[in-house]
Amino acid sequence: MKAFRVAVFSGVAGVLALGIGYMAFADAPAGPVSPIYGVGLPEGYRDWPLVAPAQEAAPLDELRVVVANPTALKAYRENTRPFPDGSVLVKLAWKHEQSPDFVPASVPGAATTVQVMVKDSKRYADNGGWGYGRFINGQPADEAQHQTCFACHSSRVKDRDYVFTRYAQ
Amino acid sequence: MKAFRVAVFSGVAGVLALGIGYMAFADAPAGPVSPIYGVGLPEGYRDWPLVAPAQEAAPLDELRVVVANPTALKAYRENTRPFPDGSVLVKLAWKHEQSPDFVPASVPGAATTVQVMVKDSKRYADNGGWGYGRFINGQPADEAQHQTCFACHSSRVKDRDYVFTRYAQ
Repeated sequence: MKAFRVAVFSGVAGVLALGIGYMAFADAPAGPVSPIYGVGLPEGYRDWPLVAPAQEAAPLDELRVVVANPTALKAYRENTRPFPDGSVLVKLAWKHEQSPDFVPASVPGAATTVQVMVKDSKRYADNGGWGYGRFINGQPADEAQHQTCFACHSSRVKDRDYVFTRYAQ
Repeated sequence: MKAFRVAVFSGVAGVLALGIGYMAFADAPAGPVSPIYGVGLPEGYRDWPLVAPAQEAAPLDELRVVVANPTALKAYRENTRPFPDGSVLVKLAWKHEQSPDFVPASVPGAATTVQVMVKDSKRYADNGGWGYGRFINGQPADEAQHQTCFACHSSRVKDRDYVFTRYAQ
């Protein structure tokens, strides 16, 4: 009887392990991932809806836009905090350039970075539940740059679940 | 026989008329529409993908984002010009404010205008094929403001099918 129980347990554990393995595979980013966090560029993010734009002054001189996946967008719109697991935010950034068509306007120049935050409260329990990725031309920045992410978010916006960007109404 | 043909023709014409009537109804904006052009705020535009952000200097001091419906987005990505009928562009704008969380950053303040361009080469044949709408708090601006749209787009970006905003790569 004990042997039978062990066999059943092993079978269930095996199915669970297979399931978890599959989920991890299905969620895994296809391309390169960031150091420390293992965060990749999520598929299809360029089609995600807008959270808000921002502008960064010198020395960066950037125009930026944050977009969100459906889980994060729902949390923003319903004011749910902390963001639920599976929330993903992506910030696209470009150099801030004078418009050639209209003097008072500035428009995107060359793309600079794409930055990603992925909520997984278990995997990133030691970092407020978020994993970070910073990409330049599709490649992750180095480990030193990724060591700055949590420190800055934690010191400035810990009370907003570590997220700077507010939803633009 | 002739009477029969007339009856068949009337029947077909009737079905066509019903169909066209339905299409017109389905495309009609639900809310108030702009003077001159009859353009409304398209349903669901807040979920449309990003074309590009922009910043407008004083006196407007705005952060802006242009989003596009699937027809316009496809044209942008495939570099199809002129934009096909059914293309819709929406520009959301907010006052440009200092971020309370990070000194070098500016973020959206109060919403200012939402501006719409709708491509219909027959309906707007006299205005480069585009109809314009400018909305403040969901209500269309007055006729005088709408008289400025085509003049400005025509004088500055006629060679780009009257569209200022380029797709941010």
